Parts: sequence; structure tokens; C-alpha cells
Amino acid sequence: MTNFDLMKELHVAGQSKIVMLVIDGLGGLPMESGGPTELEAARTPNLDALAAESICGLSAPISPGVTPGSGPAHLALFGYDPLRYEIGRGVLEACGIGFPLGPSDVAARGNFCTVDENGLVADRRAGRIPTEKAAELCQMLRAIQLPGVETFVEPVRDYRFVLVLRGEGLSGGLTETDPQQLGVPPRSVEALVPEAQRTAELFNQWIARTRELLADQHPANMVLLRGPDKTPQLPSMAEVYGLRAAAIATYPMYRGVATLVGMDILETGETLEEEVETLKTHWAEYDFFFFHVKKTDSAGEDGDFALKAAVIEHVDEAVVPAITSLQPDVLVVTGDHSTPALLKSHSWHPVPTLLHSRYCRPDEVRAFGERACMRGGLGVFPATDLMQLAMANALRLTKFGA
Amino acid sequence: MTNFDLMKELHVAGQSKIVMLVIDGLGGLPMESGGPTELEAARTPNLDALAAESICGLSAPISPGVTPGSGPAHLALFGYDPLRYEIGRGVLEACGIGFPLGPSDVAARGNFCTVDENGLVADRRAGRIPTEKAAELCQMLRAIQLPGVETFVEPVRDYRFVLVLRGEGLSGGLTETDPQQLGVPPRSVEALVPEAQRTAELFNQWIARTRELLADQHPANMVLLRGPDKTPQLPSMAEVYGLRAAAIATYPMYRGVATLVGMDILETGETLEEEVETLKTHWAEYDFFFFHVKKTDSAGEDGDFALKAAVIEHVDEAVVPAITSLQPDVLVVTGDHSTPALLKSHSWHPVPTLLHSRYCRPDEVRAFGERACMRGGLGVFPATDLMQLAMANALRLTKFGA
Repeated sequence: MTNFDLMKELHVAGQSKIVMLVIDGLGGLPMESGGPTELEAARTPNLDALAAESICGLSAPISPGVTPGSGPAHLALFGYDPLRYEIGRGVLEACGIGFPLGPSDVAARGNFCTVDENGLVADRRAGRIPTEKAAELCQMLRAIQLPGVETFVEPVRDYRFVLVLRGEGLSGGLTETDPQQLGVPPRSVEALVPEAQRTAELFNQWIARTRELLADQHPANMVLLRGPDKTPQLPSMAEVYGLRAAAIATYPMYRGVATLVGMDILETGETLEEEVETLKTHWAEYDFFFFHVKKTDSAGEDGDFALKAAVIEHVDEAVVPAITSLQPDVLVVTGDHSTPALLKSHSWHPVPTLLHSRYCRPDEVRAFGERACMRGGLGVFPATDLMQLAMANALRLTKFGA
Repeated sequence: MTNFDLMKELHVAGQSKIVMLVIDGLGGLPMESGGPTELEAARTPNLDALAAESICGLSAPISPGVTPGSGPAHLALFGYDPLRYEIGRGVLEACGIGFPLGPSDVAARGNFCTVDENGLVADRRAGRIPTEKAAELCQMLRAIQLPGVETFVEPVRDYRFVLVLRGEGLSGGLTETDPQQLGVPPRSVEALVPEAQRTAELFNQWIARTRELLADQHPANMVLLRGPDKTPQLPSMAEVYGLRAAAIATYPMYRGVATLVGMDILETGETLEEEVETLKTHWAEYDFFFFHVKKTDSAGEDGDFALKAAVIEHVDEAVVPAITSLQPDVLVVTGDHSTPALLKSHSWHPVPTLLHSRYCRPDEVRAFGERACMRGGLGVFPATDLMQLAMANALRLTKFGA
């Protein structure tokens, strides 16, 4: 019996509400030996007070030492085993912009990039061209025709777009072209399984035409494709947990993951304050809210320790009291993974987490931070446990066995 | 290789003795924010002294957030994966009263209950009629004849009884009739698998006749059936661990689980002092004793924080020193699950646990309580690990591999 079987069998109806506040890339590291992490450095009176009444711990996203991408990290938070349910980056982006993917479509995430005169990658993000410019270039790329399939090229945000191939006999099981380093040429799409051979060739034809069309568009004179794949079939959170679930997230990819697990995506603005307003507006309509904060992760990726700490302080001030004033039965505050400014990237470190409810058996943690949470009652625990614990604390699970 | 394969391969003979003291529903919660749990509130000098010389932790019965029934929770303590070995409530009760269940018998747990003039359940326990009254009613119900099968109706305790159907071609895979709420009619028994169709019909015929026979017996004017099923085949503790194991328990259901894993059931009295006497009397005859304390759980279910703490104090005074004076090689003190008075029910919270032996590598825990055990050397661990640890500390496991 899997954990999902258990949840499907045990969940019961209720009026209780669960909020999962995901502060993206929350976990961090000290910049120098003996120093604080970003979260420890931030002044967070509201999170500290909440931690004192919560059970705390460190959430481990995938497997010890394994750094997750955003897709699998979020799936884990929603209780979906990320090693079982693999989702391509293209599918995530397509869902995120609301593109209606069919079951036989293959979607790839695209980056506009810069290549030098020798065709070697000089900038994997084409100087971060603005969304408007990317939209213009996507329009240009829509002219590309491929034999026997329809193509869709949709701008996402900044230098990113989605490429979808639609037609008979397409297959996932493909490599990506981003070499993940500079000074080397983009790779070709290769088939990992024999039935994906034709799909790989179609992608490569498309890339070859793109190179011609973009030749004069420096810095966006080439593209890189990432994570080409079909849509996986995931059970919905309604099936697994019996929850009416909604997502409040400003970035397309997070809306994408939420869509894949059957959440409703709520229209919201770009700021934390607008996200809070969205939560208040829809409070009565759902049992579960996924509330996503993006800018901690971006600051960590930019190596900006002070900015990441400042974003955390902003969450503490603008988001936490607003959520607690709604009196959710269960409030989980966590991150999908760590993004230490020291590493300028996602990392494998487990993520500070608190779970607050009337029934949570508080531990002795009195501040919300990496070292404090290490001593928490949840210990270091798999991220996939969080939803079960939230369900229990919301009194939405009945007893197993007599 | 499963853990049971490992245990079967590695266990060796020995003279050492293991006692597992199970304080039912031991774990608790504070009644108000910042307050103590039942165990923390209780004065327990003997358990505290033992904890100081033990390795401590919190035992997790099934899966995070999942509240166990007593059957699966005890199986886990004995090392049996409760998600693999599922046991119906009827089988547990039948074993508990020493009814000799055959492999093709189907047993259901029965409750006498009260229905109103419209046939809706008004009291799921018939005002908790006494055992003597239930015995009288069971005698009456033995008159019911069913085509092709023999029936047995055996009183258990208070309002509870066991109904066993014996005959060819009976099957488990049946629903129960207890609606678990008031103001609705009892359900019918339904077949969950096609081969259980006839068995379901037989149960429903029996229930229809019961309704007629009990019509004038208000408040016990109807019955509810729970957990009808056959006996699962479990490997015995002798096979798995090479232990001669005995159970000292006053309540039928716990004797039932013990029987299923092959323990001898020792005759004992109703009080803790009588249970202690039983332990002393049989000390020489067994390697492993399961010593069960029931009243902590009942007090928790009644929401009686003070009574639950008082029962714990009684255990500390009357049971713990008596056991330690016998000098068992390994003493485990734990509970099968938590039953916080705050929730008036079993709960998902992990259970304070200590393991004492000459070889246990003590941690820094100095008191036996929820928050103290959180910091223990065992951390939060699966309940199914306990027997392996007890076996190791009893020096009854040989090395794995060369």
C-alpha cells in the first residue's frame, strides 16, 4: 500500500483550511564561517513567534545530497514522490502559461541565448532580453514549418519560451540542447528510446531553421531547448486528499506544477501584497492554498545575500500576519529547496519548515532558522511527508485499521 | 531482503530477557498552549531515572500523520509492517477472547446499539450495557440459524461481542455496518470482491433476524458489525526472532494481536498489580514479555487529562520498579500510539519511547516525556524498528555478512 493509497482511503471531508507558504529557495548557508544564514540574518519576529508555537524541522526534498529543480521540489511538497513522477521542464512551462497541452504533445522549454562567431555559447540567457523582445522573436519563429506536425512557440517571461510539437506518433525520451556551460556549442536533441528518433529529428530541424532566422538578432541569435517531454498523468489533489486546492503564484512554472496536480490557478498580481489580497478574496472557496514567494530564490541565485534576507523580512511583515489573521487551521511555512547566496544556485540542503496547528505538539524551537529547525520535533524529514502531516493536523484523516 | 528475512537469518539463541511495557495511548498533547502533556505533567521518578540510563526517542506507528487503530499499532511494535499485515477487528476480538478461529472462519466484531423508532442509530454502544447483559443477549442470538453455516455469538466485554460464521466457501472482503455517526440507519454488509457475495448475504440475513429478536430489548435493540474478515497468516515471533514470547494484557483485543503473532497468553487479573504478579510468576518461562497497560488510552479517549496522568503515575510506581527488580536484559517502555486527552481519540503523534539495556548507548535525555524524547538518540523512528533494537541489545542477533 503506497502513501497515496493510504491518503485516498483515509481522507475525510471537513471545513478546515490549510495554507502552505512556500518561500522559494528559503534555505541558505553562512557567507563566512560562523556567520548567519540569510534566514538567520533576517529580522523575522512574526515567523519566530509562529515557530515557537509550531513543530519545526528541516524538509529534505529528494534524497540526501540531491539538489532538486523547482518542479520535483514542488511535487515533493505536494506529497508526490518526485522520483516516481518526473515532469519535463517544457511541460511545466507550458502549464505555467496556461497552454492547453494535449496528451500526445511534446513540449520543450526554450531559452534565447547568444552564440559567438564560432557557434559557441557565450550567454545562456541572451543578456536576459525582456519579455517583449522574446515575444517578437517567438512571432518570427512561428513561421517555421515541420513535416507532419504543428508547432507552437509561446513566450513565457524574459528570455524564456515554450516550444510545443503536436502531431501523430511523437514521443518523449529526448535529451536537451543546453550544454549548461559557456564556450561550447549547443547540443543536438537525441533520442533516449528508439521510438523518439523521429521526434528528435523534428526538434533538430526546428533548431537549424531557428539558427538561420535569428542570425541577425544578437544577443538573441540562437536558442537552447530544455526538458522536452510529454505531460505525465498525475492523480489530482482532490483525488488523493479530497481537497479543493488553489495556487497563488506569480511565476508561470509554479502555476504549471500546480496545474498538473489539479489545483485551480488564481489570478494574482506581481507583488506579495497582491498575492495576499488574492488569498483573502478566495478564502472561502478552497480547503488548501499553495502560496508561492519567488524572489528569495532569484536573490539567492544572484548571490545577493542581503537581498534574499530583505525579501524574507518582507514576507515576515507583509505575508505572515495577513495569513495568520485568516486563522487557517494549519499553516505550513517552508521552501521547495535551498538557494544559498554562497552557491548562487539551488542546493541539496534541507529546508527550514514549521507546521502550526492547534494539535501540532510544539517543540522547543523559538526562532525560525536553519540551526533552530535542526533541533525541531520533525527532525530532518522527507518533504513528501508534509502533506500527510498537514492533513492530520487539519483533522482530515480517519484512523487506519481497528 | 525484508527486515523479517534479516531477523530470521540473524537471530541466535540466548538466555537474555526482553520486556516491552506498552502504555496504551501514552503520547499526548498540551491542553493549552505552553502547557505540559499528560506524561510531562505526571510525576514519574522511576521512568525519569530509567530514561536517564536509556536511549530515548519517539516511535512513529504507521506513516507520518496517520492515526493507527490498536491492531496495526501493536503489530508495528512487534515488528510487523502494519501496511502489509492487515487484520480485521472481528479477528482481533475473537483471538482476544480465546475463540479458536479456523482458517476459513469469518469473524466480525459486534456492538449492541440503540436505534430509534425510525431505525436510525441513537447510541452506537447501547448505553454501554454491562457484560452480563450482553452475554444474555448473545445467548438469545445463538438461536439464529443460517443456511449451510454454523454461527457463534460470543460476548466480549461491555456492549461488545464477536460473531463468527463457519462453513465452506466463506470469504473476507466485506464492508462493515457501523455508520460511525448517529441519526442514520446501520449500513448493510457489502461484498468488496465477487466471491464474498454469499458471505455478505449471510451476514445481512443474520442482522435482519437480530433486529427482530432484539426489538424489545431497548437500549440494546440492534447490532452493528465491524471489520468482518478471515484470519491472516502471520509468521510467529518464534519464527522471526526465535523468542518464546508471552503476553500479559487484561483487554481481549490486545490478547488477540498477541495470539496472532504466536505469543502465549498468560492468565492475569484486572489490576496492574495482578499483571505484575503474572510477570513474576512466569519470569523463568519466556524470553520476551509484552506487558500491556490499557487505562491510559481509555482516560485519553474520555478526554480526562488528570486521570491519564494519574494512570501513568500508577504505572511508574507499581509497574516500573517491579519490572526493573527482575533485571531484564532489555526493557522497552513505549505506547502503541498517542491518545491526547485534547483530541479524545487516538492520534498520529509519535510516542515517547525508551530502551534500556547494558549496551544501549544512553543519550542526554533525563526525563521521560514528549519534548525530552524528541532530543533522544533514537530520534523519531519507525515503531517497526523497536524489536530489532531490542533483539540487538539482548545480544540475540549475529553479524550480517563476513
